[in-house]
Amino acid sequence: MIIVIQCKDQVGLVASISAILAKYQLNIVSMREHVDKSEDIFFMRLEVEDGNNENLEQKLKEILPAGAIISVNPIPYKKVVVLVTKEYHCLADILIRNHFKTLGATVQCVIGNHATLQNICERFDMPFYHISHEQTSKEEFEQKISDTIEQHAPDYVILAKYMRILSPAFVAKFPMRIINIHHSFLPAFIGANPYRKAFERGVKLIGATAHFVSNELDEGPIIAQQIIPVNHSFTAATMVKAGQEIETSVLAKALKLIFEDRVFVSKNKTVVFE
Amino acid sequence: MIIVIQCKDQVGLVASISAILAKYQLNIVSMREHVDKSEDIFFMRLEVEDGNNENLEQKLKEILPAGAIISVNPIPYKKVVVLVTKEYHCLADILIRNHFKTLGATVQCVIGNHATLQNICERFDMPFYHISHEQTSKEEFEQKISDTIEQHAPDYVILAKYMRILSPAFVAKFPMRIINIHHSFLPAFIGANPYRKAFERGVKLIGATAHFVSNELDEGPIIAQQIIPVNHSFTAATMVKAGQEIETSVLAKALKLIFEDRVFVSKNKTVVFE
Amino acid sequence: MIIVIQCKDQVGLVASISAILAKYQLNIVSMREHVDKSEDIFFMRLEVEDGNNENLEQKLKEILPAGAIISVNPIPYKKVVVLVTKEYHCLADILIRNHFKTLGATVQCVIGNHATLQNICERFDMPFYHISHEQTSKEEFEQKISDTIEQHAPDYVILAKYMRILSPAFVAKFPMRIINIHHSFLPAFIGANPYRKAFERGVKLIGATAHFVSNELDEGPIIAQQIIPVNHSFTAATMVKAGQEIETSVLAKALKLIFEDRVFVSKNKTVVFE
Amino acid sequence: MIIVIQCKDQVGLVASISAILAKYQLNIVSMREHVDKSEDIFFMRLEVEDGNNENLEQKLKEILPAGAIISVNPIPYKKVVVLVTKEYHCLADILIRNHFKTLGATVQCVIGNHATLQNICERFDMPFYHISHEQTSKEEFEQKISDTIEQHAPDYVILAKYMRILSPAFVAKFPMRIINIHHSFLPAFIGANPYRKAFERGVKLIGATAHFVSNELDEGPIIAQQIIPVNHSFTAATMVKAGQEIETSVLAKALKLIFEDRVFVSKNKTVVFE
Repeated sequence: MIIVIQCKDQVGLVASISAILAKYQLNIVSMREHVDKSEDIFFMRLEVEDGNNENLEQKLKEILPAGAIISVNPIPYKKVVVLVTKEYHCLADILIRNHFKTLGATVQCVIGNHATLQNICERFDMPFYHISHEQTSKEEFEQKISDTIEQHAPDYVILAKYMRILSPAFVAKFPMRIINIHHSFLPAFIGANPYRKAFERGVKLIGATAHFVSNELDEGPIIAQQIIPVNHSFTAATMVKAGQEIETSVLAKALKLIFEDRVFVSKNKTVVFE
Repeated sequence: MIIVIQCKDQVGLVASISAILAKYQLNIVSMREHVDKSEDIFFMRLEVEDGNNENLEQKLKEILPAGAIISVNPIPYKKVVVLVTKEYHCLADILIRNHFKTLGATVQCVIGNHATLQNICERFDMPFYHISHEQTSKEEFEQKISDTIEQHAPDYVILAKYMRILSPAFVAKFPMRIINIHHSFLPAFIGANPYRKAFERGVKLIGATAHFVSNELDEGPIIAQQIIPVNHSFTAATMVKAGQEIETSVLAKALKLIFEDRVFVSKNKTVVFE
Repeated sequence: MIIVIQCKDQVGLVASISAILAKYQLNIVSMREHVDKSEDIFFMRLEVEDGNNENLEQKLKEILPAGAIISVNPIPYKKVVVLVTKEYHCLADILIRNHFKTLGATVQCVIGNHATLQNICERFDMPFYHISHEQTSKEEFEQKISDTIEQHAPDYVILAKYMRILSPAFVAKFPMRIINIHHSFLPAFIGANPYRKAFERGVKLIGATAHFVSNELDEGPIIAQQIIPVNHSFTAATMVKAGQEIETSVLAKALKLIFEDRVFVSKNKTVVFE
Repeated sequence: MIIVIQCKDQVGLVASISAILAKYQLNIVSMREHVDKSEDIFFMRLEVEDGNNENLEQKLKEILPAGAIISVNPIPYKKVVVLVTKEYHCLADILIRNHFKTLGATVQCVIGNHATLQNICERFDMPFYHISHEQTSKEEFEQKISDTIEQHAPDYVILAKYMRILSPAFVAKFPMRIINIHHSFLPAFIGANPYRKAFERGVKLIGATAHFVSNELDEGPIIAQQIIPVNHSFTAATMVKAGQEIETSVLAKALKLIFEDRVFVSKNKTVVFE
């Protein structure tokens, strides 16, 4: 059982929380706690052995400061919807893990603004919706997407190399529930064509960044980042290929962290208990 | 203020401990807890804001299981003695950090079984004892070393590329207080000439391991390990050179962890709260 | 066009080789050369712009020492057969890349000693042969496998978590053409249950090794190795899961190197021009 | 003996160069070659066994395109001058390596705009010039520095955490001979206070970049980059400390590459034969 708590900090929080758990006879296997001193926020993640947890959330609420976020998750299984365009690498990794039940979540469906990846979805009996952005207004297009998403009521929306910018109105429907993989080591190379820019700058490392989507382009809270070395023998095209390996890897890592309730959002940053 | 606790596990430990801290009005900034289920041992490290801690250790002892190890460290400054042979790289790194007061401990003296590194010690006004292993018995030799160490009453003895095997009798005088840097990714290449063996095996990574010294050669609890890539263009000699960089780096890392009270020993393993 | 040469070293080899290429008007885009001084062997890999290469292999043979291995590969596309048991992660990665034509080789078929992975193969229209090791002698069992392999005449046989030890007779049929992924940082933890051993030793890094198969268990030439950090919170079971990520990754890397003609075998080591 | 060549590309260059080496009976131990197709430039680095090299540079010049840069270096020992401000970590590392003759170059002197690091230089008998930037014009200040540098006629000027921006006039005196360590993963966080900016952005990796100094701030050709992971528990201050470790490490790496003649500059990028 995983318990996550986020609230205003005050002396004695750990004592109060753990006293309740002791009363429930719940044994704490692993505990992580962090206080953001600049914002005075308390974050806690507990893994406790399974046991009686009747009314536990309510009991915790009573002793925590007003506005506390509490979540007691007996099974860390979440539902997700995946948005894609044409590139297969992140989607295929997610489909494989989903198929073999090692993703830590279940994929409800995939939505593509191109039909390119329909075939791979069908091979895994995964519902695929082709919603084209062509010959329609951005409003209508995004409305269709959000309608389709909402039918499936997912916990998270994953942009697995979805290459269109989402409007603030769309993002506002899923606050801190949309996860994007950006193909650079943010904040370097914000925006389009990061590998081209990396090639032109002659960097010796390229990166990828998984982050929550906020309204500022590529400015949302960062969940995970990774890099790989490159050198003079790389072209912009071979950088793209090399980058796809870490895009896949860093998105998989970020999703694992989120699905295990290890990620907290605090203003424009994350607290991640790895 | 850092509080470390290691004891037999039981339900309610966190509640009892944090209740005492709350009574002392000590605010917990960061808390790490781990339970070794196979051995049923509870490990905890707390960073609390400075405040009144009169009798705190005693109060904690009263509520913890018998045999609990408790340590309340107002200042994480420890004393160390360094043993060396001829190679300079680990020692020089320690001397530099000690000189600029960024080591997190104070070096009391350096002992060498060769005089090679006397000069660099003198440049830093560091006492250096040349205790030769030649023309003496191993017993006498080690007696002289342990006498010199004990004069300085260090918390830890650091083997900074000290190339002689210590006898069980010597090791027994400083249980889990001797830290060695071994020039391989243990347990690969135990014993002498690890780089030669790595070269002959044609590995693509070489490593270094910082560990506590127990009576079995290179078998003590591992604190930290790092690797670097090598390839066919390396000879055994250039592997030695490359390896020295990570030996320096991994020993520095292990010492930092120890000096910040982040390392617990449990049987032949460590629990490290990074 | 990729040209690879391996022969006894002598002064003037580069001059002779490049003189022939110049006569053919073939422009060298990238050249890698290495001399193993201890064995006196010359290794070279050239990427040249496409052009006339009629009789080029013969012309090179004439000016190189007797016994030289020369290979001129207009298209770096090889054929492979994959052997598996029950674990899906390496196979799935290979199937995905094969499906999207980014593997750099074509998978002819998959052979499993269990039927577990038949379903995933069928989803990719990949021929799957279930050849059970039960109720048969090892000789018969391996004979069936090698017959099936030979029907497909592959350049390489990939053991993608194939969990049975191959006999010397089998290995001798495909010398330096069988690639295995071993789930440890060799030579640490040779043999069975490496993660269990790693857990018990308390290492802080775990690794995976891709290597050619020779007759000594886990002793063949190493192609690539990678590691990931672990800590006290890992059990043997979670180490297995974490290890699967790098097993997948390091096998993918090794295959890429081999399919691009970047790997040379020399006695029990490899020369790899990354 | 190391031979480096940079010139306009044309078919047959390798053949012509290696024919001359064969005539000299110089055996090539290791060869690296790269062609920048977009700029049509040929780069080559050769390690050859020592032997007669009388007039070799001239002979090579005769067969290479006009404007070729050729350098035959019997001993890869260069002279350097180091500029510092107050931070000790990069300087100390250089002084230690210089003292033990493992730097691959000799430090002629250290120049500081503060006197802070005079003491550590004196401990290594290293000449230290305190040239203050206060109570003087920028022109006069830089004139004094460049006069002092030129007295020592170094091959390279190393900015080892020298915290003042150099004027274009100063940089022009030492084109592509000034090496800087920047405390971020460029091009992220150009300019002042990169760790503060990294902290505020909530990145999960911080980096350091060694680069040649050109007239654009932090825009010169990048030689080497490294990163380390950070998390929510870091403050801007602890990021600075963590960053110092990789600043030291990446500058050491860049210097090693340069001192071994492995770095070529081509427009605003480097070609590095690691």
